[in-house]
Amino acid sequence: MNGAESLVTTLLASGVDTCFANPGTSEMHFVAALDRIPGMRCVLGLFEGVVTGAADGYARMSGKPAATLLHCGPGLANGLANLHNARRAASPIVNIVGDQATYHRPLDAPLTADTEGWARPVSGWVRTATTAGTVGRDAAVAIQAARTAPGQIATLILPADTAWTEGGVVGEALPLPARPLADPHAIAGAAAMLRQARARGEQVLVLLGTDALLEAPLALAHRVAAATGATLMAMGSNARIARGQGRVPINRIPYPVDQAVKALAPFQHVILVGARHPVIFFAYPGKPGSPVAPGAEVHLLSRPEHDPTDALARLADELGAPPAAAPDPGPRPETSRGALSPEAVARTIAALLPEGSVVADESITYGRGFFPNTYAAAPHDWLSVMGGAIGGGPPMATGAAIGAPGRRVVNTQADGSAMYTLQALWTQARERLDVTTVVFSNRKYQILLGELANVGANPGRTALDMLDLGNPDLDFVALAAGMGVEGARADSCEAFADLLRGSLGRRGPFLIELLV
Amino acid sequence: MNGAESLVTTLLASGVDTCFANPGTSEMHFVAALDRIPGMRCVLGLFEGVVTGAADGYARMSGKPAATLLHCGPGLANGLANLHNARRAASPIVNIVGDQATYHRPLDAPLTADTEGWARPVSGWVRTATTAGTVGRDAAVAIQAARTAPGQIATLILPADTAWTEGGVVGEALPLPARPLADPHAIAGAAAMLRQARARGEQVLVLLGTDALLEAPLALAHRVAAATGATLMAMGSNARIARGQGRVPINRIPYPVDQAVKALAPFQHVILVGARHPVIFFAYPGKPGSPVAPGAEVHLLSRPEHDPTDALARLADELGAPPAAAPDPGPRPETSRGALSPEAVARTIAALLPEGSVVADESITYGRGFFPNTYAAAPHDWLSVMGGAIGGGPPMATGAAIGAPGRRVVNTQADGSAMYTLQALWTQARERLDVTTVVFSNRKYQILLGELANVGANPGRTALDMLDLGNPDLDFVALAAGMGVEGARADSCEAFADLLRGSLGRRGPFLIELLV
Repeated sequence: MNGAESLVTTLLASGVDTCFANPGTSEMHFVAALDRIPGMRCVLGLFEGVVTGAADGYARMSGKPAATLLHCGPGLANGLANLHNARRAASPIVNIVGDQATYHRPLDAPLTADTEGWARPVSGWVRTATTAGTVGRDAAVAIQAARTAPGQIATLILPADTAWTEGGVVGEALPLPARPLADPHAIAGAAAMLRQARARGEQVLVLLGTDALLEAPLALAHRVAAATGATLMAMGSNARIARGQGRVPINRIPYPVDQAVKALAPFQHVILVGARHPVIFFAYPGKPGSPVAPGAEVHLLSRPEHDPTDALARLADELGAPPAAAPDPGPRPETSRGALSPEAVARTIAALLPEGSVVADESITYGRGFFPNTYAAAPHDWLSVMGGAIGGGPPMATGAAIGAPGRRVVNTQADGSAMYTLQALWTQARERLDVTTVVFSNRKYQILLGELANVGANPGRTALDMLDLGNPDLDFVALAAGMGVEGARADSCEAFADLLRGSLGRRGPFLIELLV
Repeated sequence: MNGAESLVTTLLASGVDTCFANPGTSEMHFVAALDRIPGMRCVLGLFEGVVTGAADGYARMSGKPAATLLHCGPGLANGLANLHNARRAASPIVNIVGDQATYHRPLDAPLTADTEGWARPVSGWVRTATTAGTVGRDAAVAIQAARTAPGQIATLILPADTAWTEGGVVGEALPLPARPLADPHAIAGAAAMLRQARARGEQVLVLLGTDALLEAPLALAHRVAAATGATLMAMGSNARIARGQGRVPINRIPYPVDQAVKALAPFQHVILVGARHPVIFFAYPGKPGSPVAPGAEVHLLSRPEHDPTDALARLADELGAPPAAAPDPGPRPETSRGALSPEAVARTIAALLPEGSVVADESITYGRGFFPNTYAAAPHDWLSVMGGAIGGGPPMATGAAIGAPGRRVVNTQADGSAMYTLQALWTQARERLDVTTVVFSNRKYQILLGELANVGANPGRTALDMLDLGNPDLDFVALAAGMGVEGARADSCEAFADLLRGSLGRRGPFLIELLV
């Protein structure tokens, strides 16, 4: 058994059975090992950003890490933006990067780079394997690291000779540390504060993040809110929210700074449940860096690594909060008619989303109002790109479809962002994944036009050209066809509804370009 | 004047008048400054790998740095692979990365990342600006650093508040240090060695790299070789070689290890002229790490930062080498007929390449034999992807066309690599660049099939699937159309010649997909 074979066997023994890959020369022994050892689903991406973004989406839906397979420092570099997003999502990933043989590295061959240096900022754990005899053990530790709550990226760098040399030893699956629980004092303190605030007429915001937005903790948070008059809100971007009929409707902190400040202005208290202290995406001259109201107190119930269901259950019990049914969002909307608008598109999506579907959302500006219009959809999960690195959507949808087989994925996708990692469509075609991509083709970097206006500039030709995706117009139907994905274009709500309905009723990927 | 305006003015004052950009929110003041201050050609890329690869190609053809404009750590990360290639090409680039405002960075907003950490491995110089009043000076130092021989990447990180705050001061253009000259002892030593080797019947290889392959130094190297019986060879990949009629024909060290070893086996001496000690791309079990014959002596005439024309002229004079005309490569070939093959394609390209054209080559396996078949083409320049990070070709072609206006660029391009940075086609369409992209569509990672065979594996379904680009087939004509570039497909030499001839006679980009 060589090192590569010990690595593959170790991954399988620890339950890592899916590998998103874009291999190169230094990974050929790993590829050969995948041939010899059955059990690993290998998914090829034509670009590393597809590989890492898919591993992120997969982890969010399956709850466990996939392996990646990347080629040397530059291959890792191509995957960093979506690893950055995955890090912000606390997605577990066993990130395997093949590299130069240990003894070849000092010769500084052309592809040699600072692989560890590039990996470190996105990784909770980094190790470069040193021998074939220990790489199995390295992999077992990597898997343990990746699965440590709330989930992180464990990068294992695999010099070619540690893969090809005989003497590999399978690494025994290591125990996962029990998930830590929130501090009892934090529970008691939050309960006391909620009671006191109610008595004083002060407003409390319960801010949920990480996996506090899954169905069970969200229901518990609603129980707390119903008993205390507190308000629930989600972070601006979230790894996964359980939404739709029967789930507790919850809105997000808005993206634009003024709206975010306004949304949090009423609250004298903010309780964080798996959420970080909220912060505005970017600084603006004369604007605050956080939407939390000046003078408001920020309290910690549980950190992202703590079990949010446990923390919220204990808080609800401490408060003696009675059961509370999720508010009725009203009937499922009808599909819209007439001209396309963000609200009309959202209602059509809400009307047609199948039960159990997954929305992989990178709609940027066009989708900002989608949330309130989709509360009454069938039950579904909603995934956001978490780190602000654009190009997360199509790969995340790809990985989500593999991590949640049998559930349709709808990728609501901005056009500018789509162009960073559109190669994901090819993987969707090859793997016959049930993904509908809806591209909002406004033919500009709309978000940046807004930001430029904020700067107070009266944009001239140069600026407009740098934010304009027209000249020439992108043709997403042709691009999809070039990668084996069927698609069609719509410029009305009726046409969109027809295409969306059709795509949801078929197997395999489909792309809808909305001319908005 | 704000910091951004001082930066733009400083760039222009130092002759940096082209900016390849993919901006984001934190760069809006820079974009606004570009509007107000005329003189900068701004070229938008839809992905950062296009931006950085274009800056590489631009520098190679124009001989001076472009600026880039990237957005935060993840935007930089997307550009790292082609910055890695540019570093290996010794291309000067002023790499500007907008980032979080200095006071916002500690809040760790979602897009915050270790921008400096990611920049360092590819940069000869890295600085994060601290105030609007000093960013102009920072830029002047960055330009000086980028232009220091042989050329390097200078990364200037621009926190948003250093751009938007008033009080900017234009940085005075700094003097460029004179290019260092080779050590006189190295010249005398090389001359003595060449004489002695001749007397002893020992074979000498003169290995040229960096800018020793431009027309003048190449002619001087030929003069040395003709006088001493030495052999000239180029490194395996080269930033720019002057080729075609009237230029000295020179072959490269082959890529496959066995061929490289065989090519260098005859030589007891290797003289490096702007070249690094040659090294095999990857290690293989039981194979050497360098193609230099065991026991051969490696001598240094000049390092990459030394002026190769000066070094070779002094060596030729020291040897009393008489003038030597470039060997006649024979008549320009005719276009080929019949089935496509690497040799037939190369002959057709050699037949049709216009004088003064530029070949931007990322043909990987299919193009390995192109060199000998194109010696008799019209005079042209040949650019290789330098760091082995694939996806260099289309962006390099894009930048080369901007850096060498009026000269047709032919991008000989492998299909697998093309898919990493195909967004470059859109920039070619928008800027109406004279680029012909020839995609060799073999629908597999052919190089890896060869590597897998070297591993001794008898590939099974899993391995073949990971190296196969079929299922579904990529349609490059559709992909080009999706980005506004006209294209057509050919499966015979006649059809290829027709399409290539047609594309060379028109303005603007065109793509030819060769089904090989």
